[in-house]
Amino acid sequence: MPVPVVPRSEVDVLVIGAGPAGLMCANALANAKVNVRIVEKRAVGVTAGQADGVAPRTIEVFQSYGIAERLMKESVQVHQAAFYDPSSSGGIKLTSRTPDVIAPSARYPFECALHQGAIQAIFMDSMRALGVEVEWSTIPTSIEISKDENELMDPASHPVRVVLQRLDVPEGQPQEEIVHAKYVVGTDGAHSWVRKQFDISMDGEQSEFIWGVMDMVPDTDFPDVRNKCLVHSNNGSVLLVPREQDRLRVYVQLENKDIINPATGRVDKERMGPDEMLEVARKSLSPYKLSPTTGFLWWTLYIIGQRVASRFSIENRVLIAGDACHTHSPKAGQGMNASINDAHNLAWKIALVVRGWADPSLLSTYESERRKFALDLIAFDKMYSTLFSGKPLTEENSHGVAPEQFMEIFKQFGAFTSGIGVHYGPSVAILDRNQGLASGLAIGERFPPYKFIRAADAGPVEIQDLLPADFRFKLLVFTGDFSDPLQQARVKSMVAIMQKPESFLNRYLTPSKGSENPRFDIITISKGRKEGFNFLQFPTLLRSHWSKVFIDDIDVTGSFGGKGYSYYGVGHEGALIAVRPDGYVGAIAPLDGVEELDAYFASFMKTAA
Amino acid sequence: MPVPVVPRSEVDVLVIGAGPAGLMCANALANAKVNVRIVEKRAVGVTAGQADGVAPRTIEVFQSYGIAERLMKESVQVHQAAFYDPSSSGGIKLTSRTPDVIAPSARYPFECALHQGAIQAIFMDSMRALGVEVEWSTIPTSIEISKDENELMDPASHPVRVVLQRLDVPEGQPQEEIVHAKYVVGTDGAHSWVRKQFDISMDGEQSEFIWGVMDMVPDTDFPDVRNKCLVHSNNGSVLLVPREQDRLRVYVQLENKDIINPATGRVDKERMGPDEMLEVARKSLSPYKLSPTTGFLWWTLYIIGQRVASRFSIENRVLIAGDACHTHSPKAGQGMNASINDAHNLAWKIALVVRGWADPSLLSTYESERRKFALDLIAFDKMYSTLFSGKPLTEENSHGVAPEQFMEIFKQFGAFTSGIGVHYGPSVAILDRNQGLASGLAIGERFPPYKFIRAADAGPVEIQDLLPADFRFKLLVFTGDFSDPLQQARVKSMVAIMQKPESFLNRYLTPSKGSENPRFDIITISKGRKEGFNFLQFPTLLRSHWSKVFIDDIDVTGSFGGKGYSYYGVGHEGALIAVRPDGYVGAIAPLDGVEELDAYFASFMKTAA
Repeated sequence: MPVPVVPRSEVDVLVIGAGPAGLMCANALANAKVNVRIVEKRAVGVTAGQADGVAPRTIEVFQSYGIAERLMKESVQVHQAAFYDPSSSGGIKLTSRTPDVIAPSARYPFECALHQGAIQAIFMDSMRALGVEVEWSTIPTSIEISKDENELMDPASHPVRVVLQRLDVPEGQPQEEIVHAKYVVGTDGAHSWVRKQFDISMDGEQSEFIWGVMDMVPDTDFPDVRNKCLVHSNNGSVLLVPREQDRLRVYVQLENKDIINPATGRVDKERMGPDEMLEVARKSLSPYKLSPTTGFLWWTLYIIGQRVASRFSIENRVLIAGDACHTHSPKAGQGMNASINDAHNLAWKIALVVRGWADPSLLSTYESERRKFALDLIAFDKMYSTLFSGKPLTEENSHGVAPEQFMEIFKQFGAFTSGIGVHYGPSVAILDRNQGLASGLAIGERFPPYKFIRAADAGPVEIQDLLPADFRFKLLVFTGDFSDPLQQARVKSMVAIMQKPESFLNRYLTPSKGSENPRFDIITISKGRKEGFNFLQFPTLLRSHWSKVFIDDIDVTGSFGGKGYSYYGVGHEGALIAVRPDGYVGAIAPLDGVEELDAYFASFMKTAA
Repeated sequence: MPVPVVPRSEVDVLVIGAGPAGLMCANALANAKVNVRIVEKRAVGVTAGQADGVAPRTIEVFQSYGIAERLMKESVQVHQAAFYDPSSSGGIKLTSRTPDVIAPSARYPFECALHQGAIQAIFMDSMRALGVEVEWSTIPTSIEISKDENELMDPASHPVRVVLQRLDVPEGQPQEEIVHAKYVVGTDGAHSWVRKQFDISMDGEQSEFIWGVMDMVPDTDFPDVRNKCLVHSNNGSVLLVPREQDRLRVYVQLENKDIINPATGRVDKERMGPDEMLEVARKSLSPYKLSPTTGFLWWTLYIIGQRVASRFSIENRVLIAGDACHTHSPKAGQGMNASINDAHNLAWKIALVVRGWADPSLLSTYESERRKFALDLIAFDKMYSTLFSGKPLTEENSHGVAPEQFMEIFKQFGAFTSGIGVHYGPSVAILDRNQGLASGLAIGERFPPYKFIRAADAGPVEIQDLLPADFRFKLLVFTGDFSDPLQQARVKSMVAIMQKPESFLNRYLTPSKGSENPRFDIITISKGRKEGFNFLQFPTLLRSHWSKVFIDDIDVTGSFGGKGYSYYGVGHEGALIAVRPDGYVGAIAPLDGVEELDAYFASFMKTAA
């Protein structure tokens, strides 16, 4: 009998694991037209339960890929949080309600709640339109990185060898495939196989808190089931999250005695099912009533582990993202968001390196940016979980958590939990200079939204919509007042310098590429009034199309706009702001400092081979 | 040879003509699950040119059918109008720019410009999803209404007999079909065959102005090609309308001598093509330059005729709508809008009559409401066209049109041209009483938009989104302050009366219909503050679902809301507002005047047979 030949193939990027991180990564790379494959051991997608909260910054990220509209249509939006605490007459009472999102610059001042399967379907449908499908029932059985330094240094090489095994093929057909990949992204969850193959340790600890989760359509007289509701009672804590289709997610704090088998000292799922959890929830919610109208739609139990991987990358050829790098409690609604934003941070860097537009060293900023975030997240989660799981302050328990204390933390960390305040430190991808030229935004943070008026037609445009995740750097040219002769001269001089062959705009160009610059998109934002403005006055570099020139003016209805310069802290002298493909501010320069941008881009960009 | 048998069929509604009016009508009836067919003599849809402007009220109507999002995605939005007038140094100069839409209550403060074919495709795709397709290449060859009074009076009868002929069937197959319809809607354009069969006269006159129209992608140094631009020059007037995909529509005023054959005295299309029109436009736009980059995409010539049909209905069984009832100039962008809104006005009335929910006499309000509108439109169009086509005021021409005069008219008629100010007079469908209880809105006008806060989750909701074209009447219950015991007693007493079997809510109900009232949707709008509000306090009639209760409060970001009662002019005593299925205010009553609503609905509503 002939020995079956194992098929071999090459791919630019192999993504292992089709949860939120993996799907986000594969979809983003598909958007960038990178040759990508994604494999998943499960036979089908998630259909219920699991993660469900999409934070404001993540909605902005969805929007940058053109998929936020569907997310918002299918999900419920959570606008308000309600806090319940022990009542002096027994049971619980409403202490206060606050906005759910405390982040003044959030474009979407709410969370979207939707089951993970529906969120994953959004990524999958977007990918499918780009020709990429998840390969289900497929597991990696071995992974090796070449030890040949030359091969590792060569951007065109495929130094990662992965053996894949199909679990669902008929007997007699090849079950194995050897894939040679330029890059492998391990997004295979908290028990990551990829992470284990490279002996990456998870640093951190198991917490002492055990929680149960259940989804239902409730029958209740509790008035806050459509708000996010944080209940502290003398019987334990409960977190309620409203969901699509009138559903409710209920998180219940459990006691060790309820769930640990005293004989073994381990979690015993036989001791606790949804009926038992519901009983616990009912005690905490008393005097309010709660019943599922059509049974339990999903439920699970978990013990919080708060851990971060010791590294996120092997040789910048195998990278891990999502739950593979960090695990924490679901209480602050961060899990899926952290995963999606890991992938968002990683995808453009891989895409630029694969295209040969960036030096592979750019990939090191993935670990430096996202591991620091993960450590911050764990630290926050520890504090938040402890407060939330802690006993309430009462006359008997003077060390308990006071309602004000918990709410203060909730508000204080709004920028963090919304994802809006995430900050990346200096690196080749973040040039921390000239912050004073735009004091209203922060280098290393996402570019905040604001509406400007398009000069040609007075149409109001949200500036974030000019910053799509299209893998180009955006150069926002704040010209100041072009009718001021001094400022006009500065702008014209800047344009002359940028048009030189050695400027960053031109030095990386492959001349055959046609007229549109594939790497940079120039957006002009002027001071001015729509009633008399002539956008044709600008040099053509600053108006490659009529839709590229904006003025900082109020809209035609007089409702908004006109304060963009002051919102961003840009003065009459203007500024040049380079925004990365992921929407983060990479560098700021004065109009007469084009060489600072030359230096910024030279730190990681290269001419295509 | 056997004589071929002519197939016979029955249908509730036959729509003849698949332009904007016909497609709107058929789509609306399909939404209402009415058995409808639509036939069109052309073999395919329109692909370019023709009408292109969707006015603010029409966008609201699209939104009420769930199709505005696509319209806004495919079209360009026109926000600003620019006015050019003769310059003292020769040529033209910018006089001023103003908002294109002058209607403060417009939900969409812009026009959508898109070619008619794309607009029709939106209707057709919506219809197709509901199982209705246009039957192309099909003409009616005869139409007769029964003369039998009993048949005409019987709502279940099919008294209109139409012979249809298919133009594209292979020889030997039946080309004819006899259709027996309950109702026929003639939407077959300015030369309406339906209208002619019933000898309905068109009253009005031909104007003396001849215009040319052309579509192009322009190469120009004129700064206002992305605004609607109204140019008065000493060489004639030009109207520019920006279009999707960088296109520009150019309307050019022509002189009789350019276009009339002196031998025959008639329009001679040989004398004027797009090249000649472009020459005329260039003279008027001098010193600015204008060239098509890729040729002319579409062009036509027209002489304005301003006429209105003497009646819109035969026995309330055959009704005509759109260009079949009114023709006028395209200058004010009203043609397609008038047509779509005719159909919107008619569709719900036909649907309710076909369902047996309304007396056929309700259909008489179609003619009374829409013919008056058409007469107003013609009167406006005459004045506007004359001003726009008139010579500018100059030293030589002291009777010319002054720039201020034209702009004043433009602003003054903003409510009319936007469609926002359309007003229907008293009839069985408009009860003109108790206006003072809601002085900020107008009985007989569309319910204006405002954002309220949903009580259960603090989500901001545009009230117009609670008034979809779902063929139900909406009852807006402004409760006032429910925490005031006096007001609470009034509300409870009102609820008790409404729950009686003889109240309008119950008297028309077929008991087998299940729990949701198929005819009425109750929406509760209370005074209150989201931080402490408990929506469960309301009687269940006022909260059939958690999403039905709203408070007049500012949103969680503090950006908007909280002035709805004062905006609508509703006092602390509250009000009951009945909104028709087309979004127009039908009746207003005090909380203790439920019997006024009983009387309103009794004037046209009946129990289903």
